[in-house]
Parts: sequence; structure tokens; C-alpha cells
Amino acid sequence: MAKQPKTLDALFHDTLKDIYYAEKKILIALPKMAKAAQNEELAAAFEKHKTETQGQVERLEQVFELIDAKPQGKKCDAIEGILDEGQQIMKEYKGSPALDAGLLSAAQAVEHYEISRYGTLRTWAEEIGLDRAAELLQQTLDQEEATDRALTALAETVVNQEAQRQAA
Amino acid sequence: MAKQPKTLDALFHDTLKDIYYAEKKILIALPKMAKAAQNEELAAAFEKHKTETQGQVERLEQVFELIDAKPQGKKCDAIEGILDEGQQIMKEYKGSPALDAGLLSAAQAVEHYEISRYGTLRTWAEEIGLDRAAELLQQTLDQEEATDRALTALAETVVNQEAQRQAA
Repeated sequence: MAKQPKTLDALFHDTLKDIYYAEKKILIALPKMAKAAQNEELAAAFEKHKTETQGQVERLEQVFELIDAKPQGKKCDAIEGILDEGQQIMKEYKGSPALDAGLLSAAQAVEHYEISRYGTLRTWAEEIGLDRAAELLQQTLDQEEATDRALTALAETVVNQEAQRQAA
Repeated sequence: MAKQPKTLDALFHDTLKDIYYAEKKILIALPKMAKAAQNEELAAAFEKHKTETQGQVERLEQVFELIDAKPQGKKCDAIEGILDEGQQIMKEYKGSPALDAGLLSAAQAVEHYEISRYGTLRTWAEEIGLDRAAELLQQTLDQEEATDRALTALAETVVNQEAQRQAA
């Protein structure tokens, strides 16, 4: 693929590698976030999303297969930056009543990155005529959007509790 | 603020600095993206969003004022990573029929980062009782979501055109 001209197929392949790298990094980050979380529901949400993420990695591997390419990651600066910010929050807010709110904010930044990438990949897959790949990417997109909604709902609960602890 | 315990107020202030830094970086990136775009509608969309971003920076300055803080940025690794990826695409896909699709994908990653941050900040502002700040943040959030929808619509057109150029 490296010697092909930089067409939409190449961009699709490059972006697939980008999100594959990102998902593997997220798989490493989620257990750390679950361990750091003070709220049990939040910890459980991170654990659940880890299982989903494993399925998303497998779906990406199917997409690589559909384009006759080996599953391979390519360093994704965006996810590195987003996860670095999350780690910084874990460090700076350790033991603080606002830690969970910070973890949620980091997790939602991750979700939104994924939503953006899967939306783009799905559109390109349709355009290139990779119908099965488009279906697989849509499945993951639906899952990421549901996770983001669940985190938003949790944020309202958790933030409320934190605020009460602060006021106490 | 630096000597306060790390409460939700501190997290709000830290995240405000994060997005203020990000918006200023985006203001620098948008004209480069507009210049690089092959499609005129896409270039115009980037120019329009630059004007909106200037308004968003001013709204953030009003929020800083509402919490009696000086408008100040804090290095945001996430936006650095997202914009680095965009620059990489501009370099690798220069002169390629897929360049505009790549620019759109970079711009949507930026929008989603902002949507995530403004959603979080708006929720926290409500919780802390900063009603006017919540309103200002909601206004920007609405604008970012509208921009993301406009880019999605444009992506479908542009990607279609690119695909036709590739097939030609």
C-alpha cells in the first residue's frame, strides 16, 4: 500500500491504522482509570467499556482483512495527547473530591475522538464501496455514541455527589 | 486559585485554561487549513469557523472574568496532538485528490474535542452555580455542534467529488 498514490483508499488505510493504534492505547488506559475512580458506578463503566473496546479492536481487524491488509497501528499523536491529559488529571487530582469529574471529562474526550474517527471512516468506506466495512464501523460508532451518552448521564450524578462532598 | 484545594472549581478553572489554549491554537491552524483546501466551499467553511472561533475566545474571556480570573492558557496536549495529525495529513496528502477529505477529518477531530470540553465545562458551571458562564458555554457548544454538522454534510459532497476524480 505504501507505494500507491495518496488516494482515498490510502487515507482510509492510514486512518484505520491511526484508530487501531488509538484503541490499543485506550485498552491499556481504561483499567488504570477504573482503578483510579472513586465512584463504583464509574469504575464499572470503565470496565464495561474495556470489554467493548476489545470487540472494537476485533472489528478493526476484520476491516483490515476486508482491504487485504495486515492489522497494524500507526502512532496517533491525538490519542497520546488526550490520554496524557487524562494521566495529568489523575495525578493532580488524586485524593481530591473532583477526581471522578476529571476522569469523566478525560473519558469523554477519548469517546469524542473515536466518534469523529469512526464517523469519517464509515463515510469513506461507503464511498469506496466497502459495504461490509461500513457496517462494522457503524456498529462501533453506535457503541461509542452510547458510551458517551452513558458517561454524560453519569457525569451529572457524579458531579452532583462531588459538589455535595465539597459543600460538606 | 493555585493554592486552593483541588475542588470542582479548580478543575473548572484548569479546564477553562486548557480550552482557551486550544482555541488560540485553532485560530492559528484554521487559515492554514483554508489555504490548503482545494474545494472552495471547504476553504470558506474554514474561514467562517475562524470568525466564530474569535467569538468563542471572547466568550471564554467573559467566563474568566465571571470567576475573577485572568484569561490564561495552559498547554493542552490533546489539541497539540490533534493539530499535529492534521499537519501531517496536509504534508502527506499535498496535491492528492484525498487532501480535502483528510482536512475535513482533521477538522472534525478538532470539533469533537471542543464539543467534549464545552459539554463538560457547561455541566460543571451549572453545578458550581455559574449560571451566566453556563449560558456562554452552551452558546459555544451549540456553535461547535452546528459546525460539526456542516462539516459532515460537506464531507459527503467533497468525498464524492474526490472519488469521482480518482475514478477519472
